[in-house]
Amino acid sequence: MELSIHSLATGLDTVWVLLCAALVFLMEGGFAALEAGFVRSKNALNIIMKVFMDCTVGILGYFAVGFAVMYGIDKAGLIGWSGFFLAGDMEYLGLKIPVYAYWLFQAAFAIAMATIVSGAVAERMKFMPYLVFSLVATTLIYPVAGHWVWAGGGWLNKLGMMDFAGSAVVHALGGWASLAAAMVLGPRTGKFGKDGVVHVMPGHNLPLAALGAFLLWFGWFGFNPGSTLSGLDLNIARIAVNTNLSAAAGGTIAAIYTAMKWGKADPSMAINGALGGLVAITAGCAFVEPVSAIVIGAFAGMLVVFAVPFFDSIRADDPVGAIAVHGVCGTFGTIAVGIFAEKGGLLYGGGLGLLGIQTLGVVTVSLWGFVATYGLFAFLKAAIGIRVTVEEELEGLDMSEHGITAYSDLECNPLTALSPVPSVRVLPVAEQRLAE
Amino acid sequence: MELSIHSLATGLDTVWVLLCAALVFLMEGGFAALEAGFVRSKNALNIIMKVFMDCTVGILGYFAVGFAVMYGIDKAGLIGWSGFFLAGDMEYLGLKIPVYAYWLFQAAFAIAMATIVSGAVAERMKFMPYLVFSLVATTLIYPVAGHWVWAGGGWLNKLGMMDFAGSAVVHALGGWASLAAAMVLGPRTGKFGKDGVVHVMPGHNLPLAALGAFLLWFGWFGFNPGSTLSGLDLNIARIAVNTNLSAAAGGTIAAIYTAMKWGKADPSMAINGALGGLVAITAGCAFVEPVSAIVIGAFAGMLVVFAVPFFDSIRADDPVGAIAVHGVCGTFGTIAVGIFAEKGGLLYGGGLGLLGIQTLGVVTVSLWGFVATYGLFAFLKAAIGIRVTVEEELEGLDMSEHGITAYSDLECNPLTALSPVPSVRVLPVAEQRLAE
Amino acid sequence: MELSIHSLATGLDTVWVLLCAALVFLMEGGFAALEAGFVRSKNALNIIMKVFMDCTVGILGYFAVGFAVMYGIDKAGLIGWSGFFLAGDMEYLGLKIPVYAYWLFQAAFAIAMATIVSGAVAERMKFMPYLVFSLVATTLIYPVAGHWVWAGGGWLNKLGMMDFAGSAVVHALGGWASLAAAMVLGPRTGKFGKDGVVHVMPGHNLPLAALGAFLLWFGWFGFNPGSTLSGLDLNIARIAVNTNLSAAAGGTIAAIYTAMKWGKADPSMAINGALGGLVAITAGCAFVEPVSAIVIGAFAGMLVVFAVPFFDSIRADDPVGAIAVHGVCGTFGTIAVGIFAEKGGLLYGGGLGLLGIQTLGVVTVSLWGFVATYGLFAFLKAAIGIRVTVEEELEGLDMSEHGITAYSDLECNPLTALSPVPSVRVLPVAEQRLAE
Repeated sequence: MELSIHSLATGLDTVWVLLCAALVFLMEGGFAALEAGFVRSKNALNIIMKVFMDCTVGILGYFAVGFAVMYGIDKAGLIGWSGFFLAGDMEYLGLKIPVYAYWLFQAAFAIAMATIVSGAVAERMKFMPYLVFSLVATTLIYPVAGHWVWAGGGWLNKLGMMDFAGSAVVHALGGWASLAAAMVLGPRTGKFGKDGVVHVMPGHNLPLAALGAFLLWFGWFGFNPGSTLSGLDLNIARIAVNTNLSAAAGGTIAAIYTAMKWGKADPSMAINGALGGLVAITAGCAFVEPVSAIVIGAFAGMLVVFAVPFFDSIRADDPVGAIAVHGVCGTFGTIAVGIFAEKGGLLYGGGLGLLGIQTLGVVTVSLWGFVATYGLFAFLKAAIGIRVTVEEELEGLDMSEHGITAYSDLECNPLTALSPVPSVRVLPVAEQRLAE
Repeated sequence: MELSIHSLATGLDTVWVLLCAALVFLMEGGFAALEAGFVRSKNALNIIMKVFMDCTVGILGYFAVGFAVMYGIDKAGLIGWSGFFLAGDMEYLGLKIPVYAYWLFQAAFAIAMATIVSGAVAERMKFMPYLVFSLVATTLIYPVAGHWVWAGGGWLNKLGMMDFAGSAVVHALGGWASLAAAMVLGPRTGKFGKDGVVHVMPGHNLPLAALGAFLLWFGWFGFNPGSTLSGLDLNIARIAVNTNLSAAAGGTIAAIYTAMKWGKADPSMAINGALGGLVAITAGCAFVEPVSAIVIGAFAGMLVVFAVPFFDSIRADDPVGAIAVHGVCGTFGTIAVGIFAEKGGLLYGGGLGLLGIQTLGVVTVSLWGFVATYGLFAFLKAAIGIRVTVEEELEGLDMSEHGITAYSDLECNPLTALSPVPSVRVLPVAEQRLAE
Repeated sequence: MELSIHSLATGLDTVWVLLCAALVFLMEGGFAALEAGFVRSKNALNIIMKVFMDCTVGILGYFAVGFAVMYGIDKAGLIGWSGFFLAGDMEYLGLKIPVYAYWLFQAAFAIAMATIVSGAVAERMKFMPYLVFSLVATTLIYPVAGHWVWAGGGWLNKLGMMDFAGSAVVHALGGWASLAAAMVLGPRTGKFGKDGVVHVMPGHNLPLAALGAFLLWFGWFGFNPGSTLSGLDLNIARIAVNTNLSAAAGGTIAAIYTAMKWGKADPSMAINGALGGLVAITAGCAFVEPVSAIVIGAFAGMLVVFAVPFFDSIRADDPVGAIAVHGVCGTFGTIAVGIFAEKGGLLYGGGLGLLGIQTLGVVTVSLWGFVATYGLFAFLKAAIGIRVTVEEELEGLDMSEHGITAYSDLECNPLTALSPVPSVRVLPVAEQRLAE
């Protein structure tokens, strides 16, 4: 290619999108570490393998079908239908970068949505039906929602919905899909006792979980700013700042609040608070001022603290807090655009128009995620079964599903590892939380 | 420097290569985690330290000597010989980026080749002779092969061999060097019993190994696309896509196949299958269509599944599967270019010419790696000894070589940690695999 | 923005700085893993949470106040005072990139300085006062030192002090602040016995620590080259090379020296030696030749080996070696610029001028860090208490401060985990070291 201002621009944008795609891809490693750390050691490897398979099965599915459904030629605003296997002319997309770069960035988003669900079904879902879900999620559930909001002809896009990097399309979708999955699957054996007692099942490796959170946060440096698809859009700098400020506010609030309430700063709440801040700012990062990002993040951090016990109280068992972090904060963040957007937000004199569209959009997307996943899980339950037996659950899914343990020669505590009732080591903070 | 189209192009290419070099460097962390997770806890720290020393001793070696042997002024097509310590004029390289950027990217490749071998010699090789190997690998073994294939005057380069990012130069070389090393060193005590019985020695921390695999995959976003040395070459997008599709196919196939054959998806096979896909596409990522990348990756995934037990059957003890992943898949991937390359490949009407050159090239490079490493290890064995004593092996190399354990206050299972016979916790999948 | 050579340059520089900022941010994950691995399992989560809170509280503090103090309009060369919450005109900074990109990169540095101290106060400091420190460090201690050296009007900047990426401003400052903190806080219970006996308290997860070191090293690919703030400055390539060579030399020397002295290569020394090399080259990476970088790194590696036992001998208890790595090597690296700088260095005929300025600068910065931190810790000690009780220390800070353990179902060794005296598993290398 001849060297010109235009070829340089294309090169810069391509480099930017590819490196951001790499960062987003690494979030899969972050999810794997986070989720593995938050479950018991007997199920650690199984959850990691599910995330890993999102990266294999899911990538193939999004290549063969998903991208075509999401960005193919529009049918009635509801679905795309062309470009399977990336074949055919994609001129209509109007991209300034190679379609391959665009696809890769989008593919990393698609598998992230599937992976969100893996956390909510941890410690009890069979491996094979999960692969089916991963494939359906990346070929249909996510692409349809993505088409609505991000494709040129999508009905929500045409209405003017603003979801910059996917608080709705990725996170609310994945979070409410998680709720559906957890409901069909049922809670872990021993999680909910008589008389509304909720048993704590503490994560087995919180340093690993925290390392996962750092990797996720790092990945968000690509997730949000990369969504400009251009390194020439200098808004990337403010987007990155907003992203960090929101995460910081969410983590701060969750840690301080739990410290004030229970006397001890709760690590998993602090981590999930920061992640909630990241999720919530994802829709608005390109549209709001930094101070608004702090407010949005702080609110998201509080939402996480209240949402986690709420879902326990309705017996929706979510071992890693995916519904709270992605579902609740993704929904809130999408709506928050209608309040804080510099153009069109309620606080900036934009009236209720955008707020209404954002609410409509995120509700529709969430409903789609919930219903589609509920239907799929119900079908799979009837057709091939989705849950391991109680014996397998007690033994742990690492052994029952993969024939191996995560830590062959480190000693595990039989009480927590082999028994359905939680550890005798009672956790003061956790107890207080549950006693409320 | 004055701002111009040309200075911008140089800046963009330099930024691209440096960031890709950083990603490739992080693969060392990935290798360390992968290999540590795949060995027993008593040897975890030792294997990590070997990888870490590749990053120290190896970097220095490649700076002082290796680069000069690889990219110095050509002698008879066989070796380079100028530019030691990066001194002197490098105009003849015709680089469009600073030679320092080029060197750093190449250095990260050099240490990757050395590190591949660290896995195959895990759990029994002494630390000091490993450092000698690391130095010889980065100053001689890798640079000579690299010169043949990638230097302007190299004999395989002149023949037209196509190894874009090093399926042959890095991976086949490292993989077959691993076989040589494992042969001279001999298997771990207790690995092979009487009557052909192969004992399973399960990795002690599979979540850590999986995290390593994620880091390696992430690093490949730099390894393959970065090898263009230019962000203006828009082929970087397709290269990145091919890389991901091949990995996805390899991991999918290995997981599905083991699930169908043994009833349980084997985690280490799934991981190594994906890595095999990454290795195999490394030669052809710039030359093949995405669908071909899927085929190549799928084939590589199957090769891993069959190669791992094969090397067990010939009593070449390779604790992490380096020979299968890097040797076999690197060889296959290099040859596959002769079949799938859009220009010159057999399936594209190119005849057998390229296929022959690729085969010749990878066989020669592999033989060089095998012979040079075999010779070096045999010499080191005679001169200073390369293997710890049986007592040290039973105690574990962390204590015998470094005077410390990896996990000072986590309990290890004495049966696996201190005894040469494998754990009493029999692994169903592994057993079935071995019974075949 | 219209496409032009200038908009392309701005875009490239912004992309470069944002991606480097992401790498520097990931160093927080590296610090967390390194420090957690180097402490006992009962305190692993607490140290990680402290680092995590630097990323939340610290980011907010640097946004609201810290940046204004560091880069606000100069008052008497001592402090900045404008631009709180990034408000107001920043034209005077003369930036070629958006101020948001500049801020984010600087913010990642600010929290790194705070995090350095978290390691030195590990295993005994209360969580809440640490948050206060983190806030003061990112709003006052670091910004003031940064203003002196890096702001246009700073007095050390005007004197001509050369600290390219912060050997003094980040590392010496953080390292000597660590010494002050450790002195006020006092050593861990059981660390120092009668008659000068020093008890070894080995890190509980050295693979995790090593993974942290790899992440830190990776992050330094952003830390040093990113400090050009421009991808068009081709010196980024040599800076990256110098950074790697210095790390390699530091790690090599520390490993070889300990192997020769004690018969076994010491892993924590090798890791800290490489980190010491990274710290030391941070000031001079843009100003020295690669061979000088090797010399600087090698010297830093030796300094670490001698400094760690030295601080033990003066009963300054630093569980992770932060004072040695950051304080000693940061100081040395700053001074080394006066010796090795191509322009102005002693060895290049520059006389003693620069050497004097560098020494004055790093001494002043270090004293400021020491005094300010000492004062803050003394105040906090009197006001709210900074240290957990002996009972809490014995139980571990994870439980006492957070109500949860790091590894809920992995077994910990009660002797090391619950007792103030070190493990009965005596460590030969460590013993020899202490017997000297």
